[in-house]
Amino acid sequence: MLLLNLDKASRVPFYRQICERVVQLVDEGALAPGDRLPPTRSLAATLGVHRSTVLSAYAELWALGYLESRSGSYSTVRRRAPPLAAREVSGDAAPAATAPAAVRWEAIVTPAARRARDDAVRLKEERGARDGLIDFARLAADPDLAPHEELRRSLKAALVRRGGELLDYGDPRGYLPLREALARRMRAHGIAVSADEVVITNGAQQGLDLVARVLARPGDGVVLESPTYSLALSLFRLHGLTARTIPMRPDGMDLDVLAKVLARRRPALVYTVPNFHNPTGITTSQAHRERLLALCETHRVPLVEDGFEEEMKYFGKAVLPIKSMDARGSVLYLGTFSKVVFPGLRVGWIAAPRACVEHLVAVQRFSSLAGNTLAQAAAAQFCSSGAYEAYLRRVHRVYRKRMQTMLQSLRDALPAGVEWTRPAGGYTLWLRLPASKPDERTLVERCLRAGVKVVPGSQFFPRPPDLPHLRLSIACVTEGEIVEGCARLARALAAKSGA
Amino acid sequence: MLLLNLDKASRVPFYRQICERVVQLVDEGALAPGDRLPPTRSLAATLGVHRSTVLSAYAELWALGYLESRSGSYSTVRRRAPPLAAREVSGDAAPAATAPAAVRWEAIVTPAARRARDDAVRLKEERGARDGLIDFARLAADPDLAPHEELRRSLKAALVRRGGELLDYGDPRGYLPLREALARRMRAHGIAVSADEVVITNGAQQGLDLVARVLARPGDGVVLESPTYSLALSLFRLHGLTARTIPMRPDGMDLDVLAKVLARRRPALVYTVPNFHNPTGITTSQAHRERLLALCETHRVPLVEDGFEEEMKYFGKAVLPIKSMDARGSVLYLGTFSKVVFPGLRVGWIAAPRACVEHLVAVQRFSSLAGNTLAQAAAAQFCSSGAYEAYLRRVHRVYRKRMQTMLQSLRDALPAGVEWTRPAGGYTLWLRLPASKPDERTLVERCLRAGVKVVPGSQFFPRPPDLPHLRLSIACVTEGEIVEGCARLARALAAKSGA
Repeated sequence: MLLLNLDKASRVPFYRQICERVVQLVDEGALAPGDRLPPTRSLAATLGVHRSTVLSAYAELWALGYLESRSGSYSTVRRRAPPLAAREVSGDAAPAATAPAAVRWEAIVTPAARRARDDAVRLKEERGARDGLIDFARLAADPDLAPHEELRRSLKAALVRRGGELLDYGDPRGYLPLREALARRMRAHGIAVSADEVVITNGAQQGLDLVARVLARPGDGVVLESPTYSLALSLFRLHGLTARTIPMRPDGMDLDVLAKVLARRRPALVYTVPNFHNPTGITTSQAHRERLLALCETHRVPLVEDGFEEEMKYFGKAVLPIKSMDARGSVLYLGTFSKVVFPGLRVGWIAAPRACVEHLVAVQRFSSLAGNTLAQAAAAQFCSSGAYEAYLRRVHRVYRKRMQTMLQSLRDALPAGVEWTRPAGGYTLWLRLPASKPDERTLVERCLRAGVKVVPGSQFFPRPPDLPHLRLSIACVTEGEIVEGCARLARALAAKSGA
Repeated sequence: MLLLNLDKASRVPFYRQICERVVQLVDEGALAPGDRLPPTRSLAATLGVHRSTVLSAYAELWALGYLESRSGSYSTVRRRAPPLAAREVSGDAAPAATAPAAVRWEAIVTPAARRARDDAVRLKEERGARDGLIDFARLAADPDLAPHEELRRSLKAALVRRGGELLDYGDPRGYLPLREALARRMRAHGIAVSADEVVITNGAQQGLDLVARVLARPGDGVVLESPTYSLALSLFRLHGLTARTIPMRPDGMDLDVLAKVLARRRPALVYTVPNFHNPTGITTSQAHRERLLALCETHRVPLVEDGFEEEMKYFGKAVLPIKSMDARGSVLYLGTFSKVVFPGLRVGWIAAPRACVEHLVAVQRFSSLAGNTLAQAAAAQFCSSGAYEAYLRRVHRVYRKRMQTMLQSLRDALPAGVEWTRPAGGYTLWLRLPASKPDERTLVERCLRAGVKVVPGSQFFPRPPDLPHLRLSIACVTEGEIVEGCARLARALAAKSGA
């Protein structure tokens, strides 16, 4: 007899409950192959449900391969592949090994995958947000400032106006109204591109991945600032590329060194973050940008401009993106909403010369068909409704104050010998510590003990630097937390070795 | 004097209108570098707006690099990089070349990108949905059957319950509740995996791309059915892999040939579509699956099982996925919602052995950080609310009838000598035409002229086959259209050469 209790209060339909219970009984071995199930009519009577409910459950079980039924006869339990049916599965525990592995995964994965896995292990950070810990590490727009309501409205408006279209396969280039909205926005930054020269990506990281797939073969050199965005380093390593590093000076990458590097051998690309450079916070001048572009043009090298926080300038004059001067079609511009508004929306873009766009789109198409049109339509609506502008004006005031507070607090609290940058926008500042201080790892741990989380500078360098550095971010801390965080930082830096 | 008219009825804020007009005047050259803008007070009076509106507009223009302002003085137009400001940009027309290109894109793109671009050109199809054309080509769930309202509700519920979390960076493995829901669903299909063995991808295509990145080096061989899913061919070509093709027999790939191929040299992977195979519609038997798995285990080769329409069985007994028998951890199972419900949601997944998962996740992380959590949460809600089950039960009835109608109509209409498959589910049927018929290209064009769109079979073969084939899909046609479409198809096939 089948032991079955229906939970009449549950939202799970009865037929589904019957189905799940039978699956469980079979998997546990309580029902064996060949066992008969009760006739639908009598089970329905026992359970006090309509017979059609039991029929649905049996039909489902049959579709799942749990039952055999010969018409006009009993339903019986079907013989299923035995080893896995009995296997224990839980959310966390590794299932007990049932048989020796056939494929030697460790041995056969590609070098690229192995490098990525090793990097993932190296960059693993303790996520534990301890109570009272002040977070100078996090680099993403403050969720407390996020325009949730406006995004919800944008999503709703997009669904109402274009429902069906948004749930169908999208264009591999991205949703046209968004490409148009972005072309308009970029135009306001002096970048003259049409919607046809824009490719929507799954965030700027996937944009950079696409660029690497189109421009760089394993073994190629890529020119990078040193330090630079740590996940760009990981991405280029994943692709098997060799980093040719150009030291950062207070005004941006050292262009004299770049000139020499470019003269030696043509790299696959030059990667630069001209605004609020991650990690240093440096913004380069118009003159620096002009010379950088001229160097790339001379050597016919694509320049990848990561404009990830283009909209986040709080102090001083705006400097136009390098792409705005790109009369000879050498610049690939990467943009994203992730660092400014919603990281989880995963909407970024590439503005590129036409001759490059067709390759980007073809690789995009065959590697993922298309992006998420729904998110793209919400972003388009968010831009064109004016909500994005309004949001930017609101958060600029907040972040400007935070940055001012951070700069003042560092001046007030830190000991002599520590140097730091004075960013014109964005979220990050960069501290250089004197050689007399202990190593970074120790410093970061002391900071954690003092109750402030910072990022060790070494992860931004392809090769370990001589002096210890720390990256601080104002993204997700209040002014009060900034003052207190700097005091804690100062205590951690002042502590005697071994303390 | 500044020529400025505000559109008081527009939803665009006044400050933004002022800003856009000035940008336009500067770009057109009507305002030149050094020109003074009117004082904020007098412009505000002229336009009849509050002075703060004009101040906002000027602040924005300054931030965008259009204005210089020295405090206590007039705002003047700033000198901007000249070449692009004057450049003509429109949605369609290519901008006039302003200077010779510096980077030779055609010469420097990677072989992978070039192969993808060439494939994109080759596979380009006329999208024109002519009035009255019957579409036997489209392979995606019928949008007319799509559960829009249920998805909207799922999205809303997800946003209300988990708003903030969904808009933050997600887990590179994918949203945990979705991985749990999928593990439960797969368990009902006999696949015993935990949420930790599931990686969410941007549709099954990106899943396959990730698998190729982790398992295959350029030049490696991959084993494929012939014919097979055409975009898998393009994807493997993009990766520079060599296709080793195994002919499809009426019961699935020829395993005797496979045994010989595997004995010669270990390929990077074996790719198979065991259910409603695309394009043929063939579903393999339990015995075929067991032998295929045993062959892969013996030769220690990963088996990639594309379960893209697992839920779409309408006729006959369910056959369990190969992954359900994978006691020795050799199978990577690809799943997706795209072919069954919403293509545009871009939610797919990989169920893989733990030793492989960590590599998949690392490559996923560095190549795109994470997927779209919002879409993933909506999918999780859609599954766990029971809406997915209800949808499946509803559409099964519809598609079963369409498939029956198609099979009957082909019997009624087609001339002798044409053979076709009898699928147990999914959307596609496969026609083999006698050698006496003209070539595929001609046949497809004749069909189009007769008012029915079909897919030429050659795009599913790595190498052109001897006989012409056509793929028909019942996905997006009503029963009436199916009857009429088959009649048109018959006319096109019967037409004399040159007709």
